Amino acid sequence: MRRDKFEPLGVPDIAGRGPDWSKSTEHEHVGGRVTALDRWLARQLLAAVGDPPFRFVLWNGETAAGPSDKHTLEVRFVDRGAIMGLLYDPELRFGDLYSSGRIEVEGDLLEFVETAYRALDAKLARSPWHHRLSRLRNRPRTNTLSGSRSNIHHHYDLGNEFYRLWLDREVMQYTCAYYPDPTMTLEQAQVAKLHHVCRKLRLEPGQTVAEAGCGWGGLARFMAKHYGVKVRAYNISREQVSFARERAAEEGLAERVEYVEDDYRNIRGDFDVFVSVGMLEHVGTDHYRELGGVIDRCLKDKGRGLIHTIGRNQAGLMNAWIEKRIFPGAYPPTLGQMMEIFEPWEFSVQDVENLRLHYARTLTHWLERFDRNLDHIEDMFDERFIRAWRLYLVGSIAAFTTGSLQLFQVVFERPHTNELPWSRAHLYTGDHPQ
Amino acid sequence: MRRDKFEPLGVPDIAGRGPDWSKSTEHEHVGGRVTALDRWLARQLLAAVGDPPFRFVLWNGETAAGPSDKHTLEVRFVDRGAIMGLLYDPELRFGDLYSSGRIEVEGDLLEFVETAYRALDAKLARSPWHHRLSRLRNRPRTNTLSGSRSNIHHHYDLGNEFYRLWLDREVMQYTCAYYPDPTMTLEQAQVAKLHHVCRKLRLEPGQTVAEAGCGWGGLARFMAKHYGVKVRAYNISREQVSFARERAAEEGLAERVEYVEDDYRNIRGDFDVFVSVGMLEHVGTDHYRELGGVIDRCLKDKGRGLIHTIGRNQAGLMNAWIEKRIFPGAYPPTLGQMMEIFEPWEFSVQDVENLRLHYARTLTHWLERFDRNLDHIEDMFDERFIRAWRLYLVGSIAAFTTGSLQLFQVVFERPHTNELPWSRAHLYTGDHPQ
Repeated sequence: MRRDKFEPLGVPDIAGRGPDWSKSTEHEHVGGRVTALDRWLARQLLAAVGDPPFRFVLWNGETAAGPSDKHTLEVRFVDRGAIMGLLYDPELRFGDLYSSGRIEVEGDLLEFVETAYRALDAKLARSPWHHRLSRLRNRPRTNTLSGSRSNIHHHYDLGNEFYRLWLDREVMQYTCAYYPDPTMTLEQAQVAKLHHVCRKLRLEPGQTVAEAGCGWGGLARFMAKHYGVKVRAYNISREQVSFARERAAEEGLAERVEYVEDDYRNIRGDFDVFVSVGMLEHVGTDHYRELGGVIDRCLKDKGRGLIHTIGRNQAGLMNAWIEKRIFPGAYPPTLGQMMEIFEPWEFSVQDVENLRLHYARTLTHWLERFDRNLDHIEDMFDERFIRAWRLYLVGSIAAFTTGSLQLFQVVFERPHTNELPWSRAHLYTGDHPQ
Repeated sequence: MRRDKFEPLGVPDIAGRGPDWSKSTEHEHVGGRVTALDRWLARQLLAAVGDPPFRFVLWNGETAAGPSDKHTLEVRFVDRGAIMGLLYDPELRFGDLYSSGRIEVEGDLLEFVETAYRALDAKLARSPWHHRLSRLRNRPRTNTLSGSRSNIHHHYDLGNEFYRLWLDREVMQYTCAYYPDPTMTLEQAQVAKLHHVCRKLRLEPGQTVAEAGCGWGGLARFMAKHYGVKVRAYNISREQVSFARERAAEEGLAERVEYVEDDYRNIRGDFDVFVSVGMLEHVGTDHYRELGGVIDRCLKDKGRGLIHTIGRNQAGLMNAWIEKRIFPGAYPPTLGQMMEIFEPWEFSVQDVENLRLHYARTLTHWLERFDRNLDHIEDMFDERFIRAWRLYLVGSIAAFTTGSLQLFQVVFERPHTNELPWSRAHLYTGDHPQ
């Protein structure tokens, strides 16, 4: 039952030399003698990440850098290699070193990551080269048809059982929920998200919908059930598609929802509505114009659409570790980059909403459930995977609370239709199908 | 009292040779003998503009092209030069020829312009080169400090009396109104627009606001009066600024609203809020990054802002005639182009709303009032100016109803603030200051 999901990507060489995670209580003994060089490296590291208020503790228990105040967040290093790895590439290496237990954080992991993000951000903002360099550095990668399949398999085929343990039990959404009332439960907020999307699309019974990247098919079933539309939904994750089909059959929706195991580039048909929630992150900017062409090809004359995606204020890559270990090929676009989907085909953007803090709250709910179900999860995965996944959830919360990531919902229309609502008030009234 | 406002830009040579407008009932006699060449040119012209269902009638009363069905819109040419001018550059020349009375349209002018727009659009869409060529063709012009002053003077200093005759009587807005209820009067819709802007900005008493391009100062006074903020508003139109100051003094707002006769590039101070309604059209894409820098410089750490502007789905110049005769230097950006204001400075776009059809309705209200006050306006301007201005209003309605122009309101925040509302429902509740 236990699987180490890092294997397919190759275990990073530096991580392989670390101690067994289970021995992490004895870290003091495995790092060897502490020298002046180690202390100097620790101080260099703290400065390199923008001098956040952390205390760096070496493997012999000695504080090598940062304040000694006992309320300070404490970071413990198991050996010199851990410090060197971080100095070499903190963004990429921290995740691996933390996952394998060669770095320990005493205190609240979220507070630690948020503080680190803000310190790095402030350091970058002080650099006069930052704005110019970031454009060169942050060129997104490309996603071919076969590359996409392997990237998507890596993440989404971890096992439906695993995701079921910490996603909502109502509509199984692995995307940002919507909390118009911040006291909502995860289930309420995911259902609210689906209604929000459907109302933005102004769905009418009998309409046809193309969905690109449908996850476990929750939105497609929801639209068919509550809004009376027919949906053809595409996804290249085999496990998700077979789950989605079973559910649709169980719920008697098989006639109205068709799940196709194929790439969005192969969408065929003539639809009133196009929708894509949480797929654009995996498309790659090189393919945005092509995606717009797919939408243009399959959308009727008065059709409209919605794209929901993680994004950025300024062009920049996904966190390197998350891109490498968790979401290969993922790239969050700026709104400007997204316009390459719409402008070449003259789609008319009608509405953009940024739901950044909603994703932080969604992730917080996921993390709570993840932690509550740790016993089950330990039966499925090894400790390194679990530490990595928690760090990914916590790091993502921090990315949204610190403004490093955004969440955009963009509604667009064909350019010549004048059947537009006079205000967005209809999104905020209670009279919707339940 | 009569002024010909075309003079400063130079009367187009082709128009100068036309007949006196007052003699337009005798067009048959002034064009000379009709030849086979004239009939051929008329047919070429109809094809060149995409074969709209128009009947082209020559100066001798003969139908030279199009259906002879009496319900067809009829276009009458006064001489061969009018046909040749249109063949050479229909977008630019139509306005001049129509203004000087060398082309007459029998029937509804709006229906005529809308039909022409749609026919040209369809013809362009059929051209395989359209998408590629439009990028080259439509490079925007640049606006220097002194160029901006002369461009703005040309349009906005036509006389406050003139604008007063057809703009709303409540807040004197020369920008798109907001009709959440489409039966609203112009006054109601302009007040609704100002509330909509203020609610999007979540104004709080005591906050400071910088306004770039304030027109007659209506928004600044409204914000001070109804939301208790202090406003510093910039405008380079002398007539508008002096009107705005007088009004503020009359309304006892001089302490809370300061009007500065200066360019947006010279905004100085430290503000909670930045707002600009209907100025970006005059900024020029070359200066968007600079505008973002001005906002970055003058906005506090948790500040936010709103930009309201005419825009486009796809990069393209303002209609050539309007750009030349009515709004020199004007350019409506795409959303993608607008991001050059925000992304270099890491502003976080929170909300975009497209109010395209609201501008068509606003312009319809303006046109109705313009026509109702024709007697007054004839005392102020000559017939050619009046025909040109009507064509500008009618043509603008058509541009918004056919989707050639858009109206974007973009709300942005500093990237690190988490003081964000959980939904946009607050924009759609009735409990706002009256």
